[in-house]
Formats: sequence, structure tokens, C-alpha cells
Amino acid sequence: MKVFPRLSKSKALQENTFAKKVGQRPGYLYVPDNAHKPRLFLLSFDEEQFQEKEYKEYADLMAYFRANPQQQHWIDIRGYGDIALLEKILADFQIHPLQMEDVISDYQRPKMDTEGTNLFFISRMITFLPDHCLDDDQISIFTGSNYIITFQSDYEDCLDVLRARIRTGRGIVRKRPVQYMAYAIMDVTIDNYFPVLAQVGEYLEEMEEVLFGQPNKKLLTDILNMKREMLKVRRIAWSERDKLNEILRSDNHTIPDEIKIYFKDVYDHIVQVLDIVDNYREMMGNLTELYLSNVSNRMNEIMKVLTIISSIFIPLSFVAGVYGMNFSRENPDGSINYLNMPELYHPYGYVILLTIMLLILIGQLYFFYRKGWLRSF
Amino acid sequence: MKVFPRLSKSKALQENTFAKKVGQRPGYLYVPDNAHKPRLFLLSFDEEQFQEKEYKEYADLMAYFRANPQQQHWIDIRGYGDIALLEKILADFQIHPLQMEDVISDYQRPKMDTEGTNLFFISRMITFLPDHCLDDDQISIFTGSNYIITFQSDYEDCLDVLRARIRTGRGIVRKRPVQYMAYAIMDVTIDNYFPVLAQVGEYLEEMEEVLFGQPNKKLLTDILNMKREMLKVRRIAWSERDKLNEILRSDNHTIPDEIKIYFKDVYDHIVQVLDIVDNYREMMGNLTELYLSNVSNRMNEIMKVLTIISSIFIPLSFVAGVYGMNFSRENPDGSINYLNMPELYHPYGYVILLTIMLLILIGQLYFFYRKGWLRSF
Amino acid sequence: MKVFPRLSKSKALQENTFAKKVGQRPGYLYVPDNAHKPRLFLLSFDEEQFQEKEYKEYADLMAYFRANPQQQHWIDIRGYGDIALLEKILADFQIHPLQMEDVISDYQRPKMDTEGTNLFFISRMITFLPDHCLDDDQISIFTGSNYIITFQSDYEDCLDVLRARIRTGRGIVRKRPVQYMAYAIMDVTIDNYFPVLAQVGEYLEEMEEVLFGQPNKKLLTDILNMKREMLKVRRIAWSERDKLNEILRSDNHTIPDEIKIYFKDVYDHIVQVLDIVDNYREMMGNLTELYLSNVSNRMNEIMKVLTIISSIFIPLSFVAGVYGMNFSRENPDGSINYLNMPELYHPYGYVILLTIMLLILIGQLYFFYRKGWLRSF
Amino acid sequence: MKVFPRLSKSKALQENTFAKKVGQRPGYLYVPDNAHKPRLFLLSFDEEQFQEKEYKEYADLMAYFRANPQQQHWIDIRGYGDIALLEKILADFQIHPLQMEDVISDYQRPKMDTEGTNLFFISRMITFLPDHCLDDDQISIFTGSNYIITFQSDYEDCLDVLRARIRTGRGIVRKRPVQYMAYAIMDVTIDNYFPVLAQVGEYLEEMEEVLFGQPNKKLLTDILNMKREMLKVRRIAWSERDKLNEILRSDNHTIPDEIKIYFKDVYDHIVQVLDIVDNYREMMGNLTELYLSNVSNRMNEIMKVLTIISSIFIPLSFVAGVYGMNFSRENPDGSINYLNMPELYHPYGYVILLTIMLLILIGQLYFFYRKGWLRSF
Amino acid sequence: MKVFPRLSKSKALQENTFAKKVGQRPGYLYVPDNAHKPRLFLLSFDEEQFQEKEYKEYADLMAYFRANPQQQHWIDIRGYGDIALLEKILADFQIHPLQMEDVISDYQRPKMDTEGTNLFFISRMITFLPDHCLDDDQISIFTGSNYIITFQSDYEDCLDVLRARIRTGRGIVRKRPVQYMAYAIMDVTIDNYFPVLAQVGEYLEEMEEVLFGQPNKKLLTDILNMKREMLKVRRIAWSERDKLNEILRSDNHTIPDEIKIYFKDVYDHIVQVLDIVDNYREMMGNLTELYLSNVSNRMNEIMKVLTIISSIFIPLSFVAGVYGMNFSRENPDGSINYLNMPELYHPYGYVILLTIMLLILIGQLYFFYRKGWLRSF
Repeated sequence: MKVFPRLSKSKALQENTFAKKVGQRPGYLYVPDNAHKPRLFLLSFDEEQFQEKEYKEYADLMAYFRANPQQQHWIDIRGYGDIALLEKILADFQIHPLQMEDVISDYQRPKMDTEGTNLFFISRMITFLPDHCLDDDQISIFTGSNYIITFQSDYEDCLDVLRARIRTGRGIVRKRPVQYMAYAIMDVTIDNYFPVLAQVGEYLEEMEEVLFGQPNKKLLTDILNMKREMLKVRRIAWSERDKLNEILRSDNHTIPDEIKIYFKDVYDHIVQVLDIVDNYREMMGNLTELYLSNVSNRMNEIMKVLTIISSIFIPLSFVAGVYGMNFSRENPDGSINYLNMPELYHPYGYVILLTIMLLILIGQLYFFYRKGWLRSF
Repeated sequence: MKVFPRLSKSKALQENTFAKKVGQRPGYLYVPDNAHKPRLFLLSFDEEQFQEKEYKEYADLMAYFRANPQQQHWIDIRGYGDIALLEKILADFQIHPLQMEDVISDYQRPKMDTEGTNLFFISRMITFLPDHCLDDDQISIFTGSNYIITFQSDYEDCLDVLRARIRTGRGIVRKRPVQYMAYAIMDVTIDNYFPVLAQVGEYLEEMEEVLFGQPNKKLLTDILNMKREMLKVRRIAWSERDKLNEILRSDNHTIPDEIKIYFKDVYDHIVQVLDIVDNYREMMGNLTELYLSNVSNRMNEIMKVLTIISSIFIPLSFVAGVYGMNFSRENPDGSINYLNMPELYHPYGYVILLTIMLLILIGQLYFFYRKGWLRSF
Repeated sequence: MKVFPRLSKSKALQENTFAKKVGQRPGYLYVPDNAHKPRLFLLSFDEEQFQEKEYKEYADLMAYFRANPQQQHWIDIRGYGDIALLEKILADFQIHPLQMEDVISDYQRPKMDTEGTNLFFISRMITFLPDHCLDDDQISIFTGSNYIITFQSDYEDCLDVLRARIRTGRGIVRKRPVQYMAYAIMDVTIDNYFPVLAQVGEYLEEMEEVLFGQPNKKLLTDILNMKREMLKVRRIAWSERDKLNEILRSDNHTIPDEIKIYFKDVYDHIVQVLDIVDNYREMMGNLTELYLSNVSNRMNEIMKVLTIISSIFIPLSFVAGVYGMNFSRENPDGSINYLNMPELYHPYGYVILLTIMLLILIGQLYFFYRKGWLRSF
Repeated sequence: MKVFPRLSKSKALQENTFAKKVGQRPGYLYVPDNAHKPRLFLLSFDEEQFQEKEYKEYADLMAYFRANPQQQHWIDIRGYGDIALLEKILADFQIHPLQMEDVISDYQRPKMDTEGTNLFFISRMITFLPDHCLDDDQISIFTGSNYIITFQSDYEDCLDVLRARIRTGRGIVRKRPVQYMAYAIMDVTIDNYFPVLAQVGEYLEEMEEVLFGQPNKKLLTDILNMKREMLKVRRIAWSERDKLNEILRSDNHTIPDEIKIYFKDVYDHIVQVLDIVDNYREMMGNLTELYLSNVSNRMNEIMKVLTIISSIFIPLSFVAGVYGMNFSRENPDGSINYLNMPELYHPYGYVILLTIMLLILIGQLYFFYRKGWLRSF
Repeated sequence: MKVFPRLSKSKALQENTFAKKVGQRPGYLYVPDNAHKPRLFLLSFDEEQFQEKEYKEYADLMAYFRANPQQQHWIDIRGYGDIALLEKILADFQIHPLQMEDVISDYQRPKMDTEGTNLFFISRMITFLPDHCLDDDQISIFTGSNYIITFQSDYEDCLDVLRARIRTGRGIVRKRPVQYMAYAIMDVTIDNYFPVLAQVGEYLEEMEEVLFGQPNKKLLTDILNMKREMLKVRRIAWSERDKLNEILRSDNHTIPDEIKIYFKDVYDHIVQVLDIVDNYREMMGNLTELYLSNVSNRMNEIMKVLTIISSIFIPLSFVAGVYGMNFSRENPDGSINYLNMPELYHPYGYVILLTIMLLILIGQLYFFYRKGWLRSF
């Protein structure tokens, strides 16, 4: 029943980073001890050929890369756990140390940097975890003349569909400038938001069923948790939207117009993501309100039971109490005191009293019926 | 008692689409299996002539279309369930695959694209369903030199009034450039919001009557549901407004000024829609607040009944209880113990006690009357 | 106890309009059956002369108008119930059919249109109705070279002070260009907001007195209703402000600078209106919060009464109940059972018990006094 | 216990003004009957000389003013109750009638008007009244080539420190262009916000102490009242900030750059005012929330007392009641009925029953202890 | 249990300042009596050399500074308690008196002033105090051609890591223009926000544990307090962001582009700070909602206990009360009255009654079980 799941999967890591980083010179690359060892993949292709390989040695990868300048290359690096390697890449591809710092920090909003014709993008991929939290991982993209480099902290990602598309030669990725591949990666990343949001939608429907079934205290915690996760997604999607806006407004030199139309499409998708997220946030607001109103309604029901039972039996008990009093029938002088509780000595006393009690009961029930308090039972 | 009606009629469809689409090449046309088979209509007219026909074969339609370049044509396609046909249209009219993807995805905000002098619009039509949800369908419009193509997923729409106007030659549609027909379609689409909103208004009045009559738990759910639907309409209307703004700010070449004045009129209408929607949202906020205050007030009333009855009879019962005690009148030595409950042996004991009880009762009633608690019964 | 007063006085009318209008050609003038017959007034004046007359026939009015081109004319038309007349005016003064549609629709936000040097303004006048709703009527203003035409749906308006000013030759209306008269009308219209808001202020003070006196359920409804009315005024005033901004930013040709300084003054007034409206909305928010807190406080008080009475008498009743038990003093063998309720046979048993009860009572009262629960009675 | 203190000290006055003003020609000077008679002060100085005098007659003041064109003059007019005088000033200094109307209306937001090189400023001074309301008075400033005219409705103001500074020749006021004096007045006016806000802060701390001590219903009213006052200050400060922004962005001709740096300083101060006001508003929001939560908590406590007492004694009373029943020990035939309440005849019946009651009591106390309900007493 | 911790550590000081300052000439340096005596540090370095020293006398410091124009100097002044010294510095380095006033006032938002090529920055450092408040101290930075001057009110700061870096010659501070050192200081200042926010995060987790454990009234106060602190941080961070934006948009002359890329990095960090702060604010909103819902839930539970116990035993008590009535079995004539409470004389009367009571008990328990009220115990 934790209301504060981690800021992100790698929060602990970040706090380490933060703690270690304060006062470090800028561009200093801090890699936490538990970071994954990098795995190096290279996809090389032109319109006819295609080669895909995992390299053990960075040098081998570079050898192939340099030997084939006519091909397009996707250098795909997963895991940051080798600082020497990162620095070699940084030097080979003239990446600014501050950008490499951004890559590793793993907690950057989506953004875009341009340096000459080289571009640097950060995107975030989201995953729906089994404990109903959302995880978001960073993917960093550098583009050059004939290559693209991507960095991620984990080995798994959502880009396998794209790799398959390049592999089988389907699509137009292999015939386009290298910015098109950057587009393709961002497109897949963002398209991946939709199934995640569909899972969130299902989870919300489950919550709703619980709410109208047997709501418990945990429900509110769950709703508020998911609301926070959606806030996170909203913030990411908003930055993503800003990034895409920047791309669409950039000059033709940076991103050719024939490619921009594809980014426009991604832009439309991220706007849809924002719509869905806002819709979910409204839903969760409604759920919260319904939950709280439920609590009040249940209280009302409890009080009604108490009030009906008490209001009926307390007066009746009083009446019974009266006739349980022991006022003396006899005066001190032995004569009968006709004033002390004569009802008790009336031949029909008991029957009349029971009748009166019954009438009181009926009267009260009628009163409660009129007030509508008997209805919901 | 579902708080989450579908995002839109075709949500299931979309989720399919989303799920299937991830990683597909852009512009890939995915049509779900349950999509309607397309029906093809052609309205052709110039100032004198008018012809309207449903074609079984696309080729026949195109034959007529190509044979009459001097006429204006409205190619009206309803249903997407034939991918080959869509691709033929795409090729014949040079539609960008990404735009055709937008047409089919059926979940696009209203927007406008220009490509040269050809325009692409997306509008949304709303319907008030019997279960008090709003449905919104997409209508996509392409304009060319002498033709306009519209796409929709269903066979029914709200454009029959427009078709009737062209048919009978009323209005000025038949004398104007083709953008005027795009305007006419959007105008009818948006004018159609008003009767739908009038229905919503009636529904709100029903809700209000329920609130002041016999409110139940479902009411809050209904209010919150409708609030969400209004949020949806608001978002659509907002995008529609942005689209119209873009139209009004576009240069004279794209949309002639003599036509813009008509779009200005549509713009004013969509602003009225936004006003009404905001008004409804405020109303529903008020209804929610009244509902919750009602719950509290009912609780207050319940508690007052309980308190009045208990406060009156519990002390009286105590008094009766006292005189039901069995303290012995006799000392062990047989003498009378005048200290033990002498009241019981007083000749007027019972009468005095009843009088005291009556005074207590009156005192309490006066106290409650002064506090105003007796008023609302 | 209606929470939804009509959107405006003429809502029914509008809904008719909406229902009838869908699909009509733009500029189609729909006038509902219950519209007032138009009355035609003409005020003509120059610096020396002044003439004011109601005309039965439009032709007579136009005859005088055309015969006196050197004068300024205010053609003042009240009521729309004659479509032929409207079309004649439309033709005579070259009014665009869409603008005439705006005039009649009677549900337009304040706005400004310019066509050449001719201007078209829409303003709204508000009235405080006896049932505490606000009514808002539209006044539409066309300016030409030497004339101004105003349209309104009702016979009464708030412009009589202005007519009196022109009549008596006071003020500078009669010496200025025709846009000055448009200014004068808008100025009077907006100045008229202040007494209406003063009435609202008084109404709010009445509400406040009710709140601290005998609040009832209707109060919340009234507050929320008035809040909605203020939202409406806010929206109107906001549009009015936008309109005035547009006027102030327009070029010298449309509105001369010497006149703009007057519009600047109106602008300041509408900003004051917005201030007052926002202040009222804050007040009503406070009233709502106080009302709800009052409900809670009353509940607290009710519960305190119940708790004090119950807590005191329930234990005492128990004690009395104990000594009302019938445990047998005699053993089966006839000997006295000294263990069964010996208190009852103690010579001072009753006195001691009453003392104990008194101590319990005092103890509890002290406890409640310490908790501060006795204070507010 | 008024939740609606006057909009401002002079609200009644304003409403009069509003009521009287509707339909008046623009620039008409309406002065309410209870306005103060004007007092006329003149401060004249150059770098060497200084003269300060109250004039009975406006003519004398003007005589001195006109005779000393080489000096700087501060014409300081307090009170508006002489319309003829105001019109004379208006004519002598070429003030626009609309501006003079603004001066008198006494309910203008801070603003700035420029006319040629002459400037017109409106500022507002705030005062903390003993009844915990804030009063805001208007000070209007006109600047000319070698003079500055200020108008206020009251005789007292917060500018005495400034007058003292000029008098003693401290500061640089006497060596600077006349706009510097306008700056100096605004600077003092705004610096004066800080002690007022400090008083508000102390008042908030008092409120807080009441909240944690003996909160009463008045507290919420007080909080909400002060929140509204802060809203008013916020609005004034916001306009003040806009005015200063306009000053800072104005061209060098209107306000020399060497003076602008001083206005930049005032700008920083008003931003600090806004910070403090926002902080206070957040505080008061917190106080409101705490107050309402306190109400709920007190309710909880009341209910706990009721529940504990009732839950303990109601079952015990029942048990006692059972043994107060009069089931006959004798059968009609005189034999002993061993089934009817044999407990009563058990030699240890009473003792055993008391023990059982004690155990029930202990059990319940343990239950409540476990639930933590006994803790807070 | 104070809900209003000081606005900042030096609030009392400020209020003094405010109170003293009103009406002072601008640029007047007011230093409160309890200000720290200044300590003067000088760090001088070029690429080869490094010298660090605390000076007792300002003259000695200036002597060294003037003797080494080829070096870069960081003049580091901590404490303001010597007005003569401040005025000397002001004169020596041509600092504008208004800027020096800003330095001393110690309550300025982060901002940037440029005067020629000299820059003036204000940053704020935050600290997490043991009583869970945040303290924020001002650091003011002036840059010149080869020097940088920093002012702070306290002796301790968070810049020791930077000093260490310069000292050990690590980093590139010593090889860059002087603006780079300004960057370095701001970078360290902002990096320092992260560990503080990490502490806040831990505090929030503690609060959460309390909420799900033994929540008390203080918890809400704590949450609201921390929310206010976060509001303060948010405001500071927002101004810091504006400042950095201004830096990034400034022309190349003021801040060279090669340095701007570093400021871009700081900008990204402050955006992350804002993200975290917003996240925390959402969290605290959730905590508040959970707390209030907890209060309601506990109330529900209390009421359930009361209702169950009362509903069961009150009717049973009534039944027992009935059979405690003393209706006379004998008629006045001595015959047996078979109508008066015959149950009491039935041989199995008691047994039957106990059975009936048991059935009532079971019935009620079943009813409560069905309603789910027995579950949570």
C-alpha cells in the first residue's frame, strides 16, 4: 500500500548520481556501479544489402563501419556500464561531453539539440509494470551523415518491430536519408504508448468494478497512484510534443521537408496520447469523487439503521420502564392508593399497552417510510 | 452503472488498430475486419444541371467524373472496408498515404492540411445516443480543382439537409468555387451540434429534477459521465476552432476572401458551442456540489431525528429505571426504612413523577425548538 | 428551486432557431413567430437642429433620411418580426446577410466587424430580473457615413438617457463623427452594468444574512445560480473587452484617434466590471464554503447534544437497571442469601446510590466541560 | 460577523457615483456631497532653495507657481469637494476631462497614460484597518515640464517621509528631472505595502493560534475575509506591475534611461509584494483546510465518546434488564418452575453476574484500546 | 505545531529592513544590527598558479588584486555587517547602489542584470533544516573583466566543492573566461537542490508511513507546511529558469556561445528540479486527500461499531423491559387476570423468550454481515 512508488525505475540510481555529481566538473561521466555492461549492435544497409551483427569489440564494429561509408549504419548501444568505451565513442563521433552526460543521466525530458547538421534527440519509452506503475526508459539518438547512434540503459526495448522491418526490407527506411531513421525510431516509440495506455484503460475499468463492488481503502491509494503516473506521462508527452514542434519549425537544412511530413504524423499521435491521458485523468478525478461520495453514502446508510432502530425502541423501552416502576399501591395506612399506577391494575392494562406500543411502532415506521429511509434496504 | 463508456463508438476498433499498427511502416492502411463495405455516391452539378447517383463500381464513377470536367463533383464515400479501393482512390487523386491513414484511423482531432491548392480537412460529427453518451464520427474532406471527396465510416450522417439543398438548387452552393462546398459541409456539421446540445440540456434538466426529487447514487455517476462527454466535445470544438482560425488566417490563394466570410460565420458558431459547453460544465459542477451537499443535509436530518428522540427518552427512561429499583423498604429488623425510595410510598408519587417527566419533555422540546431542529419536519 | 434558469430570456426562441436553422443556406433569415413587430424610430440632428420621430412606414423614414444627407441619423429599430422589412434594410444599407443573421440570432458574443469604413458592433445589455436572474439582450450597431442603425429584439432598452442627452443638446454627441455615437451607445450600455452589479451586490448581502441567520437548502442553490449568472456576465464582459481592445488597436482610418480616447475610457470601465464580477465570484465561493462548513458545524452540535445526553444517562440507567434486578434474597432453603444484592437491604443503600449517581453526573459534566463541549449552548 | 466588508472605504460613494453617472456625458465630473473640501499644498524647490506652504486660495498658489518657472513644483491637492476648483486646474494644466474623471472616480486600477511628454499615473496606497480589512486609496499623479500634481481624496497619506526627505535636502530628488519625483512617490507608495503586509502576517499568526487553541465559527469567516482582501491586493499589485512594465518598456523620450533603473527597483519590490501575497493566500488556503479537518476531527472525537459509552453500557443494561424481568417462579399449581430465571435463585447469582459484567466491560475496553480509540483522551 | 514557519530564516531581519526602509532614498544601504561581520576571501589563479587567502583588511586584498591583473580573481565576501566596507567595494568596482541594495536586502528572486559587459546575478541556495523547513540563502555574483565578486550573508555555503576543484586544478574553470566561473557557481548551487530534494523525498516517505500507521492531527499540518515550502522552491526555481532563459537568449557579446552550452545544461537541471517539485506537490496533494479520506473512514468504522451494538441491544433491552413491567396478575376482586402478562406465568416463558432474543440477535448479525459491516473488524 505504498503511495510513493519510485519516481522511475532508476530513482535510486539517480539519487546516487545526484549525490555523487554535485560539484563535479560539467561533462563528467558518472556511471553507477550497477549499470549494465554495454552490448554493441550494428545494423548496416543500403537499398540492396543488409547486415546485422552484435559485436563483442568496439574496434571491430568501427572497422566495419569505416569500411562501408556508402551504407547507412545504426549503431545500437545498450547499457552504459563501461566508461572507457563511452569516452571512445564520444571522441570518435565528436559528441559533446554534456550531451553524453545527458545520455547517461537517464532522467532527461524529451528534447532536441542541433549542432551543425548533426542532431541529438532524447525520447522516452514507457512500460506498464505488473504492479500498475509505469516505467519510463530513455532512448538517446545521435544522427550523423550516414549513421545513427542510439543509447539505452537496458537490453530490451520496443524497437524490435522496426529492426524486423529494416531486416525484411519492408518499408522505406532503407531508401531514405538518415533523419528518416530517427523519425522511424521516434514513431515506434510513440506508437508504443497506445498499447500501454490501453492497459491503463483496462486497469481503470477494473478499479471501477471494485468501486461499485467492494470498495476498500486501498482503492483510493491506487487511484491516486495511477493519477500520478499519468501526470508523469503527461509531462513526458508534453515535452515530446514540444520537441516535435521544434522539429516541424526547424529549417529545411536540418530536417528536409519530405521528412517533416512524417514527423507531423508523429505529432498528431502524441496529441492523441495527450487527449487520452487527459481523459484518464478526468476519469480518475471522477473515480475519486465517486469513492468519497460512496464513503459518505455508506455513512448515511449506517446512520439510518442506527436512527431507525433507536428511534423505535428507545421510546418503547421508556414506556416499558414506566410500568416497571415500583410505586406502592398501598398507602402507609394500608388503604389502596388509586393514584399510584392504576394502569397496572386495570383488567385490560397490558393489552391496551401492547396496542399502544404497536401504534407507536407503526407510526414511526410510517414516518420513516415517508422520509424514504426504508427504501434502500 | 458504468462510469466509463467507450472513448468513442469505435474504441475497440481503435485499440485493435493501435495494437496492430505499432511498428508498421507509416502510411500503412490498416482496416479492421468489421469495417463497413464502402458505398460510393456521386453528386455532380453545375449551375444548370444536377445528377446524383450511387455507383456499384468505382470505375463507372470515375468514368462519369472524367467525362464531365466542367461540372463540380462531390464524391461521397461511406465505409472503409475495401483496402484495394482506398488505394485506387489514393492513386487517382494523389492523396498522401499519411492523410489516408488519418482518414481511416477515425480518431483524429479536427484539423486542416494544405498541399498546394488542395485542402484536406477533418471534422467530427456528434450524436446523442439513447444511453446518454455522445458519439462522435469523423468526416474527412479533400478538395481539388473541381471536386470534393468526403470519407466517413458509417452510412448515415447529418448532411442530408445539404444534399437536399443542392438537389433542389436552393442556396448558392452550386454557383461557388469548390471550397464553398467544403464550407457548407463543415457548416452543417457544426450547426448539428446545437440540437445535440439541446438534448444534453434537456437531460441536465431531468437530472436536476431527480436531484430535487429522489436522488440516488446513480445520479452522481450520471453527472460525472456527462461531464466527461462534455470535456470530449469541448476538446473537439476547441480543435475545430483552431482549424477555423487557421482557415481564416490562411492566404487568399488557399481560401478566397469571399469564402472566408462564411468560415467566419462558422467560427462564431463554434465559439457559441464552446460557450454552451462551458455553461453545461459549470451546471454539472453545481449539480455535483448540490448532490454532495444534499448527502450532508440528509445526514444532518437523520442525526437530528436520532438526537431528538434519544435525548428525550434516554433521560426519561433513566428516571423510570430509578423507580424500578428494588431497594428494600424494610430494614432487616422489620422496621420501615424511610430512606429507601420514600417517593414510591408517597400518595401522589406517581402523579408527581409523571408531571416531572412531562416537564422534562416540554423543556427538551423547547430547547430543540429554540435550536431550530424541529422546523424542517 | 430551479438550478437551471434559462440560458437567456430567449432560449426557447434560440432552440427553435437552432432546430430550424440546421442545413439552411447561410444568411437565411429565420425569425421566430413570437418575435416583436418592428418599431421604427429616427433621430436626426446636426449641431443646430434636432428631430425625433417614430415612423409607421419604413418608406417615410427613408424618405426623410434621404432628403437630409447633411444631418446625422440614428435609425433605431426595435423588434425583428417582419422579415420583408429586414430584407429591405439589408438591401438599402448594403448589410451582409451573415451580419443580419447575427443581428437576429440574438445570441452573439460582443464583437466588431469592419467592412471598409463601415463598422458593425454587437453589444449586450444586462438586466437584473426580480427572480434574481440576469437577462442579457443584444444590441447590434451598424455605422455608415452619416448614419447609425441599431437593432434590438425588445421595445425597452437602457439608452433613454442617451436619447435625452441628444435631445437636450447636452454633451458633444451632436458635434462629432458618427463613430462617436457608436461609442456613446456602448458607453451607456456598459455604464449600465454598474447599477445591475450593485443590485447583485445587495442580493449577495441578503444571502449572507440568511447564511448567518436561518440557512436553508435553497441558499446553496441560489448561490450556485448566481455564480453561474456571474460566469455569464464575465464571459460577456471578456468579449466586450476583446472588442474594445480591437477598437483601440484598429488603425486611425477606421476609428479616429480623438475618438479612441473615449473608447479607452469604456475599456477602463469594462475592466472594472471584470474586477467586480471576479470579486463577486470569490465572495460566492466563500459563501459556498461557509455554507458547507455550517452544515458540518451544525452536525457537530447535534452530535454533541446526543453524546452528552447519552453519555450521562446511559450509564446511570445501567446502574438503575442493576438495582431493578430481581435476584432472590432468599435461598431455596428459606435462609437469607447475603450475597444477592445486599445493597438493596442496606439502610442507606438508596441514599448512597443517589449520591454515587450524582457524582457520576458531575464527573461527566466536568469531562465535557473540559473538552469545551458545553460552551456553545 | 460580516463576510462582505465594503469593496473599499468609498463603496457607498462609488455606488452613488455609478448610479448618478449612467448616461452622463463622458468627462462629466461628479463629486459626491460628502467629499472632503480640497486642501492645497505647494512644495517648490531647486537644488538650493526649498519652500513649502499650504494655500487657502488656488490663485495664490498659481501666482507663486508661475512666478518661479526655474523651480520644480509639487502641487499636492487633497480632497475633491470643489468642482469649480477642479475645473480650473483642468484648464490651467490642460488635463483631459476623462483623466480628471478617473482621478475623482477613486476606483481605478493602477495605470499609466502618456500624452506627449506629460505623464499620468494612478497608484493605490493600502492601509490595514483595525477591523482587519484593508483600505486602498488612490493617488493620481500628473507630470509636466517642471511640475508634478498629485490628487488624493483624503487628507492623510503615506508620503510624509518623502516630504521630509525633500525638506531636509537628503536624497537626490531635488537634483533630478521631474519624472524622478513621480518615481519617488510610487516608490514610497509601494514600500508602504511591506509594513501593511507585515501586519497581515501577524494577524495570520493570531488566527493560527486561535485555530490550534479554541477555534470558533468566526475563524473561517475571518480567514475567508482576509483571503478576499489579499485577492484585492493581488489585483492591485498585478496592475501596478503591468504599469511598471509599461514604464520600463516605454521609449527613452518618455522616461529617461537613468530614471528607468529606479523604476526597475520598484518593479522588483512589487514582484516581492506579489510573492508575499501569494504566500499568504497559500497560508490561508492551508488554514481553511486545517479548520475543516479540525471540524471533522472533533466530530470523530465526539463520536468516539458516544460509541465507547454506548457500546459498553447498552449491552450491560440489557443484561440487567433481563434479570429485572418478572417471570414467575411459581407454576399456576404452586410448584416451583425451575425453568423461569433460575439464575435469580442461585446462591452466587448476583456475584457471578457482576463478574460477567466486569468481564464484558474489560473486553470492550480492550477492544477499544486495540482500535486506538482510548488514546487521545 | 506551527503552520507558519518563517518566510525565510531572515524574516525578522527583513521586516526590520522593510520597516526601516520605507521612505529611505533609493540605494540607501540598511544593514541590520545582527548581521555577520564580513569575512574577505580571495582566490586568485591562472592556468599555472593558484593562491587562496582570507584577508583581515580589505586594503591588503585590493593590493594583491591590483598587483596581479593577469590572474583571475574570485573575491568572496561573506557577511554584510560593515557598511563602510560595502561602500568602499561599491566605489572600487563601480557597482550601482541599487544593486548593492539588492545584495543586502537578501530577499530577491533569482535574476540577471547586465551593464555593459559586466553582469550581476542573484541565485538562491536551499538547505533542508532539521525541523523540516527549507532555508534559502541568497548569493549575489558580480562579474568584471578578470574578476568575480560574490556576496552572501552567512559564513557557510555549498560552494566548497567548487573551491576544491579550482584548488586542485581539476576541471576547466581555470582556463576559461570569467563568465565560466559565474556558470560554475550557479551550476553547483543548482546541483545542490537535488540532495535537498532527496531529503524532502525521504521526509515524504516518513509522512506516508505515519499516514498508514498512526496518523495524528499534526500530520496534516506537516504536509501543508511542506507543500508551502515546495511552493517557495517552485517560485525560486521558476525565477532561476527565467534567469537562465535570459542568459541563453542574450547576445554573444554578453555571454560567449561556448559558455552558453554550459548554461543550457544548468537550464536542463532546473527544469528537472521543477519536475521533481511538481511531483512532490502532487504527492502531498494525494497525501492530504488520503488523510481526509482516512478521517472519514475512521468515522465510518466508529459509527459501525455504535450502530451494531446499539441495534442489537436496544431492541433486546426493550423486550426485557416489557417483561419487567409490573402489571397486576390479580384483579381487584382477587381473581386472576389472565390478560395481564400471561407470558410471565407460562412454564417455558423464560426459555422461549431467551430463544426469541437469540433469534433476534442472529437475525441482526446476519443483516450486518450481509451489509458487509462485520468484515473489517
